[in-house]
Amino acid sequence: MTRALPKVLAFDVFGTVVDWRGSVARESISFLAAIGRADVDPAQFADVWRMQYLRTMQDYAVSGRAFVPLDVLHREMLEAALRGIDVDPAVLDQELLTDWNRAWHRLDPWPDAVAGLTRLKARFPIVTLSNGNVALMLAMARRGGLPWDAILGAEVTGFYKPDPRAYEATARILDVAPADLCLVAAHHSDLAAARACGLATAFVGRPLEYGGREAPDAAARQDWDWVAGDFGELAERLGC
Amino acid sequence: MTRALPKVLAFDVFGTVVDWRGSVARESISFLAAIGRADVDPAQFADVWRMQYLRTMQDYAVSGRAFVPLDVLHREMLEAALRGIDVDPAVLDQELLTDWNRAWHRLDPWPDAVAGLTRLKARFPIVTLSNGNVALMLAMARRGGLPWDAILGAEVTGFYKPDPRAYEATARILDVAPADLCLVAAHHSDLAAARACGLATAFVGRPLEYGGREAPDAAARQDWDWVAGDFGELAERLGC
Repeated sequence: MTRALPKVLAFDVFGTVVDWRGSVARESISFLAAIGRADVDPAQFADVWRMQYLRTMQDYAVSGRAFVPLDVLHREMLEAALRGIDVDPAVLDQELLTDWNRAWHRLDPWPDAVAGLTRLKARFPIVTLSNGNVALMLAMARRGGLPWDAILGAEVTGFYKPDPRAYEATARILDVAPADLCLVAAHHSDLAAARACGLATAFVGRPLEYGGREAPDAAARQDWDWVAGDFGELAERLGC
Repeated sequence: MTRALPKVLAFDVFGTVVDWRGSVARESISFLAAIGRADVDPAQFADVWRMQYLRTMQDYAVSGRAFVPLDVLHREMLEAALRGIDVDPAVLDQELLTDWNRAWHRLDPWPDAVAGLTRLKARFPIVTLSNGNVALMLAMARRGGLPWDAILGAEVTGFYKPDPRAYEATARILDVAPADLCLVAAHHSDLAAARACGLATAFVGRPLEYGGREAPDAAARQDWDWVAGDFGELAERLGC
C-alpha cells in the first residue's frame, strides 16, 4: 500500500459501527406487541424504516427542506412505516412513539467495534461522520462504549451525506486536507461520495447488515484505499 | 442541596479544565527567544493575548462579524500582541506563527482535571461548551487525556459565549431542557450568562488562573447551584 496514512479517521456509524437492523428489530418486537401488531415481522419493519431513510438522505439536498435533526426525520419515517401497516400513529401513545423512535439511540455495536476503535484511537483521532444527530450519537456511544474523540456529522455541518458539503465541511472543521481524512464505511455509495470530495476511503465489510442479503449499493463498489473484514483488521492495515 | 441533578455536564475549558496562562507562557518562552525577544516576560505576553480574547468574545455578537473559528481569531490576537511589543508579524516566519498559535492546542489540564472528569463521566455525559473550535479541542483532549463524550461549543452552535444562543443551542443539540444542562466553569461571567438562559450552574475555583491575581469577573459572583474547589470535589457534590 503506497497511499500515505490518513491523519484522522471519520466513521460512518449506522451499519458500519452498529447493527441497526438487528437492534431496531429487537426493539420493535415489544413495541409492535404493545400496539397489538405482534403479527408484523420486526426485521421487515426495521427494513421498511431504514429504506425510507436511505431515500430521504439521497434526496435531501434537492428537496429544499431546511436541515432538521435525524431524530425528527426518524420519527416521521416511523409514522409512515406505521401507516404502511395500517396503523394510525395519531391515535397511539405519543410517549411510546418517542421511545420507539429512540431505538436508534440504542443500537448495538458489531462485536469487533469497541475493541477495534480503541486500537485505532491509540494512533488516530476517531470521529463520527454520520447522519445521526449529536444527541443520538452521544446516547449510543455511552450505551455501547464507543470511544469517539469527537461527534461530528450532519448536525455539525448542516448537511446530510452524500451531499459533498457534509464531507468537505468535516475536513475543514478538523483542519485537515480532504486527502488526510479517511472515511471508514461499510457502504460503497458513501465511500464514492467521499472519494469524489478527495477523502481517503476504507471499506469494512458488514455482510450481515441486511440480514445476509446483498446491500442496495453493491454496484457502487470501487477499489478503495483500504479494505478490511472488521475494525481489528483495519487497525492492522493502518499499522496500529 | 434541593436542586435536582443535571442530565448533562457542559464544561468551560480555558481556565476551568486547562491552565491557559501557565501553558501559553511556557510555550512562548522559546517562540519569544526565536524572534530575538527573550526580554519579554512570557506570562505577561500570555496575559495580553488572553485579554484581547476576553474583549473579542464579549463584543462578538454586536461586532457584526460572521463566525470564524477561534484558531483564526487567536492568530489575529497573536499578531496584535506582537505589534504591541513592536514586532511586525508580517516579517516573521509564518510557520513559526502557526505553531505559536497552536500553543492553545497544547494547554495542560489542571492536576485534578483528568481524574475528576473520568469520575464525573461515569455518571454524567460530559461535553465541552467552549469558545475553542473543534480541531483545537480535539488536539487538546488527545494530548491531555480529556475524556469528553462530545466536543460542542462555539463552532457547533455558530455563536460565541456569552451570547445566549451559545447556551440555548447547546441544550437543544443535546435534546435536554436548559435546566437539565449544567455549565461547569471557573468564571462567574460565563455562569451568569448560562443562568440567564435557564442552565444549572457549577462553579469550580481556579485561584491560579491569573497567576494568583483576582479574576476580571470577580464582581459577577452569584450563589451558584454547586460550588467546588476542584473536579474531585464537584464529583462528590454531584453524588458520583
